[in-house]
Amino acid sequence: MSDYVSMNREELEQELSQLQEKYRSFQEQNLKLDLSRGKPGADQTDLSVGMLDELNSKSDFKTESGVDCRNYGLLDGLPEMKEIFGHILDVPASQVFVGGNSSLNLMFDTISCLMTHGVAGCEPWCKQGNVKFLCPVPGYDRHFGVTEYFGIEMINIPMDENGPDMDEVERLVQSDASIKGMWCVPKYSNPSGITYSDDVVRRLASLKPAAKDFRIIWDNAYCVHDLTDTPDHLLNIMEESKKYGNEDLFIQFCSTSKITFPGAGVAAFAASDANMAVLKKRYATQTIGFDKLNQLRHVRYFKNYDGFLEHMKLHREILEPKFAAVLNNLEQELGGKGVARWTKPNGGYFISVDVMDGCAKRVVELCKEAGVVFTPAGATYPYGKDPKDSNIRLAPTYPPVAELETAMKLFCLCVELAAVEKLLGR
Amino acid sequence: MSDYVSMNREELEQELSQLQEKYRSFQEQNLKLDLSRGKPGADQTDLSVGMLDELNSKSDFKTESGVDCRNYGLLDGLPEMKEIFGHILDVPASQVFVGGNSSLNLMFDTISCLMTHGVAGCEPWCKQGNVKFLCPVPGYDRHFGVTEYFGIEMINIPMDENGPDMDEVERLVQSDASIKGMWCVPKYSNPSGITYSDDVVRRLASLKPAAKDFRIIWDNAYCVHDLTDTPDHLLNIMEESKKYGNEDLFIQFCSTSKITFPGAGVAAFAASDANMAVLKKRYATQTIGFDKLNQLRHVRYFKNYDGFLEHMKLHREILEPKFAAVLNNLEQELGGKGVARWTKPNGGYFISVDVMDGCAKRVVELCKEAGVVFTPAGATYPYGKDPKDSNIRLAPTYPPVAELETAMKLFCLCVELAAVEKLLGR
Repeated sequence: MSDYVSMNREELEQELSQLQEKYRSFQEQNLKLDLSRGKPGADQTDLSVGMLDELNSKSDFKTESGVDCRNYGLLDGLPEMKEIFGHILDVPASQVFVGGNSSLNLMFDTISCLMTHGVAGCEPWCKQGNVKFLCPVPGYDRHFGVTEYFGIEMINIPMDENGPDMDEVERLVQSDASIKGMWCVPKYSNPSGITYSDDVVRRLASLKPAAKDFRIIWDNAYCVHDLTDTPDHLLNIMEESKKYGNEDLFIQFCSTSKITFPGAGVAAFAASDANMAVLKKRYATQTIGFDKLNQLRHVRYFKNYDGFLEHMKLHREILEPKFAAVLNNLEQELGGKGVARWTKPNGGYFISVDVMDGCAKRVVELCKEAGVVFTPAGATYPYGKDPKDSNIRLAPTYPPVAELETAMKLFCLCVELAAVEKLLGR
Repeated sequence: MSDYVSMNREELEQELSQLQEKYRSFQEQNLKLDLSRGKPGADQTDLSVGMLDELNSKSDFKTESGVDCRNYGLLDGLPEMKEIFGHILDVPASQVFVGGNSSLNLMFDTISCLMTHGVAGCEPWCKQGNVKFLCPVPGYDRHFGVTEYFGIEMINIPMDENGPDMDEVERLVQSDASIKGMWCVPKYSNPSGITYSDDVVRRLASLKPAAKDFRIIWDNAYCVHDLTDTPDHLLNIMEESKKYGNEDLFIQFCSTSKITFPGAGVAAFAASDANMAVLKKRYATQTIGFDKLNQLRHVRYFKNYDGFLEHMKLHREILEPKFAAVLNNLEQELGGKGVARWTKPNGGYFISVDVMDGCAKRVVELCKEAGVVFTPAGATYPYGKDPKDSNIRLAPTYPPVAELETAMKLFCLCVELAAVEKLLGR
């Protein structure tokens, strides 16, 4: 295949009409496919249904310490569940708070808490005028949605294969006290799939923020979601930050939404003593407690951390061919054409594609008009605005492989089509 | 039995030493009983364990409309669950939002939302300086905890057998725009067990608040918790308020925490279109969705509203003798002594006792020292401060009847003891 950029106008015109013909044949298939969200497939949720057999009308509903999980109590979760999350997040169980079904909700609660209640002796953010958050891009649209909801100004921080641009992060955080926090998905980042390098983690751990109430939301959503024999390794942020007396800067989150059931899993956070005290005060007011029967189901089914890791291997078996299907199609259809770059993650839920500048919206639109929905272009940036209009997030997990193959063939075609249109100035 | 107030000093001294002797014999029993919280008993949670058989590894996990409850989706809940809550709250299912496991959490979210996001074109409460809430007293300590957490000034509103003092409510709400809301448990109120009269409901429904962003938290926690053949009837607040164009003033809450499992039940709210839009915007940012598998369990087990009502009869069978034990003891031990008044509710979870002014703390302390824990005196008032130090909440649901009998005998003795101490000026 030749590189589009080196084609002359005539060659491009010819290419365009060939691509348009192919596109029409896709349209005739009346496809209805959806690669828009990071949803586990039905084959993945099938893996966890055995958990539902763990509790029935004949069960013993008590924790090892004798608490009846059918009633109120244990605000911060079952000790057994805290233990498992401690292993997952690599912190002592005592630093874990087990919440409801959604880590997004726990992160929202945290931001909401900081909006109305100060930490580290500072005024609540809602009383400090304009406050700002750093947003490594491309990133997770729902994170950006939370800060946007609270009117927190978002500042784009470019990401490369090592993580966020730390020169920029240090410059901003150390000079501007209105910068109050930062979103991070440090392992198998959403959407690029990259893992923060040791150097990046250490520079984050040793930040000297101008704001005393600066907090990093460390969304470790994919910490156990390895997909290859060469998994990435992320430095332990709590241990690193302690070396600099910075343990209050980081609050860590995760959930089993993509391990057991999205919506019917269990979420947790880990925090320093100071942060835990602030958040526990809130949760003790907010609720009498979270769903302990569902925690008990998880504990009985997995037994321990090793049980979780074994379970993750089953997910990998399902997801590996799906990621391969996406990557193979990208390579076969777009390799060497100079119209797209993409990441090859060792885990997580997404693949990030950068198409030609100014073409992302057009690609997604073309796909949609042929019946395949992708994450809207721009969604991976704050306010839905990708300044280069080039990034598209691919979510390979939900559709069966056969559907993925079709969807990716269409996607690649649309990437080419949009590129040729652009080169022709259409 | 003679009335303490009419006894002379000598008679009182004699009575005191007799009561002290009885008290010592209680102390020797080394009791360890707890009547402090409105927790269902194990006999009550036993009623719902059959629900756990509804979902197992072989189940069909789809709603009637075909949504797989094991995955993301349906932010506002299963249509079938909305239907049932619509009946429970007596509103169209379209006005219902099904949330997580805790109505307290939904109420907290609502107040939190109003703190950071304005409604009705007003500034968020956090930007309006000092804002205030009306708190009918005695009331629910966790309600007061939420407003206290957000620094909202709480104003006591006396309750009588018809509900809150409406002259006072109208005077305050119609004159002071910094009064932004009011807590209400309109049916089988916590702790008095009274139900708001039709007149009170109509006066609330027709309020003309000075604040455009005034909102009433209508916590209908005990709407189906009848305990006698003569249940109370509460007027439908959404219908009444509509007559005055006031449907935006009320947001209604309930849960199955005291129907199925505390902590593993399902909560919901009902709201006008305008309030629903504000809250849905928040929830769409806050979470991808709540636990639909648990909703499905509830729907499959109860099938419909009638199933819920049948289930409530089983609760009544367990609770009726417990409430009777408390009321009989109060009548037998304290009747005619002029040292206490109490309510005789037709439903709900509590009985409210007013002991002699200045004696509530002493009664609870005496009970505690003899091994029986009651809700702390003062807890039924904002900031934990009962101005008369007279109200004590009794929670008869958790202990078995035999334990209740013992606990109540001690309680009544302590009420007498504290009264005689007071009359003797000790």
